[in-house]
Amino acid sequence: MYKQISSTQNSLVKYMLQLQEKSRSRRKEGKFVLEGFRELTLALEGNYTIDTLLFYPEICSYERIKTILENTSNTPECIEISKEVFQKLAYRSSTEGILAIMKTKVHSLDSIAFHNENPLILVAEAPEKPGNIGALLRTADAANVDAVLIANPKTDLYNPNIVRSSVGCVFTTQIATGNTSEIIAFLQNKNIAMYCAALTASEHYHIQDFQKASAIVVGTEATGLSDEWLQNATQNIIIPMQGKIDSMNVSVAAAIILFEAKRQRNFK
Amino acid sequence: MYKQISSTQNSLVKYMLQLQEKSRSRRKEGKFVLEGFRELTLALEGNYTIDTLLFYPEICSYERIKTILENTSNTPECIEISKEVFQKLAYRSSTEGILAIMKTKVHSLDSIAFHNENPLILVAEAPEKPGNIGALLRTADAANVDAVLIANPKTDLYNPNIVRSSVGCVFTTQIATGNTSEIIAFLQNKNIAMYCAALTASEHYHIQDFQKASAIVVGTEATGLSDEWLQNATQNIIIPMQGKIDSMNVSVAAAIILFEAKRQRNFK
Repeated sequence: MYKQISSTQNSLVKYMLQLQEKSRSRRKEGKFVLEGFRELTLALEGNYTIDTLLFYPEICSYERIKTILENTSNTPECIEISKEVFQKLAYRSSTEGILAIMKTKVHSLDSIAFHNENPLILVAEAPEKPGNIGALLRTADAANVDAVLIANPKTDLYNPNIVRSSVGCVFTTQIATGNTSEIIAFLQNKNIAMYCAALTASEHYHIQDFQKASAIVVGTEATGLSDEWLQNATQNIIIPMQGKIDSMNVSVAAAIILFEAKRQRNFK
Repeated sequence: MYKQISSTQNSLVKYMLQLQEKSRSRRKEGKFVLEGFRELTLALEGNYTIDTLLFYPEICSYERIKTILENTSNTPECIEISKEVFQKLAYRSSTEGILAIMKTKVHSLDSIAFHNENPLILVAEAPEKPGNIGALLRTADAANVDAVLIANPKTDLYNPNIVRSSVGCVFTTQIATGNTSEIIAFLQNKNIAMYCAALTASEHYHIQDFQKASAIVVGTEATGLSDEWLQNATQNIIIPMQGKIDSMNVSVAAAIILFEAKRQRNFK
């Protein structure tokens, strides 16, 4: 009934390996590979489009495939794959026998829309490690921020390690990328206060008023934020640290400040 | 002047590889392998004892070794190692050419001493991933908690991945391990309130009073805390999450609650 692929030498398999491994291929093709039922469900809720759906029927039932197809706006090609092909393409063995080629989205600042007057935004400048970006996106989802803006990104958002470590949160939040100047102009234009986390700041984070429209801006663990951010900040802020080591994971620092903002807003 | 080891087949090299790889060897020998100048400095500040100091003189100067030895209470054996031995033993190439065999500490609840009347404590039950334990210890250091208690540990604290991901914070905070019953009895005996983080809790974390002696208790991301904790809690608490996914990294959750406690205490 469905088209079948059983050889790992098949050209589609090779194409998918390219998409998994190379940022350039993802950019050029406008596609990426996704694995897992939960991730796919979140992507569909986030209005992503499936290009091709692949499943290994020993693990993934035909019923499940039908259910997925009932929730898609288009009619993607469906392909049955062999155990060998599934194992070649899947990073985890626990991803329910489902893989998909998805269409990427363009993450332009223009596309960001706010649905309230006092948005809370997370900005990360040049985050390096996919695991840190995934953790930031998980925190952003939990805090239900209005948008995540990534300044001077070092990688595309569809890096498999980002998708995986975000546990699908890369699909649940509005995300835009741009260079630092563009994002600063965007925030200034919308009258959104910029609170820049910096170890050199003297103002503590918890005495700020985050109830108005606010962007929490964090840099890398290694070098922090660029001068452009620090000089344009509404306020540079610091989390007082009292240990032996002035060092905090970037997603932990972002979470502490975002949830202080949420607390001030009574989690509304 | 110093003893030299140039062969990766040397018995001490094999002994160190065992210590790095096997929790059982670390337990049996009461020793572990540490790498890096910063980590070593933190360990010495934390009153750890060097058993044997190894250095690769192309990267680590004799002066640096002298400086380290001036800060030790004992006189450890010092050994010059070849590039091959250093590369065999070092996980990172950026660890300044220093390795040490260190004596482990016993992490008994008896050894925990509080220096103020309202200690703030982090308790983690059965944390699984070394990276999560390292991140918890980093957060604990930044919050300068009075102790970290690990209930039902799945691994010893000297797992190289824990030491590494804690960036040395495993040495900067008082840590004890024990089973859940022992730790609950310890906290009850000292009149320390237990706030247990649970997705099933209805009370929000930010309306609690953390100014008195408090333990923040977190479980695993997969299964949360055991019933024994939830039933003995002073209060089960939840971080309100408003995203699509009810999931938060355990070190992020711990940080949000600990820093709310710090805020209530005015960071004193």
